[in-house]
Amino acid sequence: MRVPDTTVNRILWSIPNVLCLIGSRSGDEWNGMTASWVTQVAMEPVLVAVSIDRKAVTHRLIEEGGAFTVNLWAREDTRPFVKFSKPATLADGALNGHQVRTGATGAPIFEESVAYLDCTVWRSIDCGTHTLFLGEVVDCAFGNDADRPVARMEDTRMKYGGVRRGGH
Amino acid sequence: MRVPDTTVNRILWSIPNVLCLIGSRSGDEWNGMTASWVTQVAMEPVLVAVSIDRKAVTHRLIEEGGAFTVNLWAREDTRPFVKFSKPATLADGALNGHQVRTGATGAPIFEESVAYLDCTVWRSIDCGTHTLFLGEVVDCAFGNDADRPVARMEDTRMKYGGVRRGGH
Repeated sequence: MRVPDTTVNRILWSIPNVLCLIGSRSGDEWNGMTASWVTQVAMEPVLVAVSIDRKAVTHRLIEEGGAFTVNLWAREDTRPFVKFSKPATLADGALNGHQVRTGATGAPIFEESVAYLDCTVWRSIDCGTHTLFLGEVVDCAFGNDADRPVARMEDTRMKYGGVRRGGH
Repeated sequence: MRVPDTTVNRILWSIPNVLCLIGSRSGDEWNGMTASWVTQVAMEPVLVAVSIDRKAVTHRLIEEGGAFTVNLWAREDTRPFVKFSKPATLADGALNGHQVRTGATGAPIFEESVAYLDCTVWRSIDCGTHTLFLGEVVDCAFGNDADRPVARMEDTRMKYGGVRRGGH
């Protein structure tokens, strides 16, 4: 592609995306991870796609556990997203201090989420730098306060995507 | 899944998504289609995923043409989205009255777009009701006025996704 990286990045960053926490688990290892490449992709089966960096802890936990949760978050509380960009700390039934419970798939669900989708991995697609996990929704529910608007990337100063840094 | 369809729908509809026009072409057949299940999924290669209803004209044109464009649209002009929910009319080099030109892949690019991504199909994944097309970005550019905020589903009264209607 002959387009300058800076242009490619600006265009890709301008695609509006959700900002949420992905829950994953393998045995005693639990994690929560900030993610934005998330969208529904089919109605029957009900499939949700999440693309995860191959180097992320969450990538290994989803592969090993065969499941993940998508935790939609309130847009007025974007503080957790920076911290969940690194591997999370599990203590006293909480990830980075945010209480979780075990979902139907075994993956963690954040008690504070506006809503969650609990998914089993239906198919994994190797996409180079990332793996696209297609999850079949097996359970979902709203949290205590369902009417909170959902966080998105533009609510923060974070950016994600574009070309691989140092990749050219 | 034991969750009522209405709950599944409300949760899936609350995922913030872009609203854009997908350009596709097979020979003399051109189309533009409103879509919201669009996200980047990898940085190397630079891949963008678009999930399209198997019954849509655009589905056949992407399969036959092996390419598609993602046209980001200004959020202050959401009027075209309802009309582009049905097969578009091609006349005088325009789809539904909106001028298009031919991209590097052969797929149509809307002259009015805030920015476009021109993609060759890198892989297609059969997802039941929909096919997830993974497109490698081969060209992209901003339009005449790059600083316009990009349209998203919430800018309209439209909804897309959830469970298949009549499917249960």
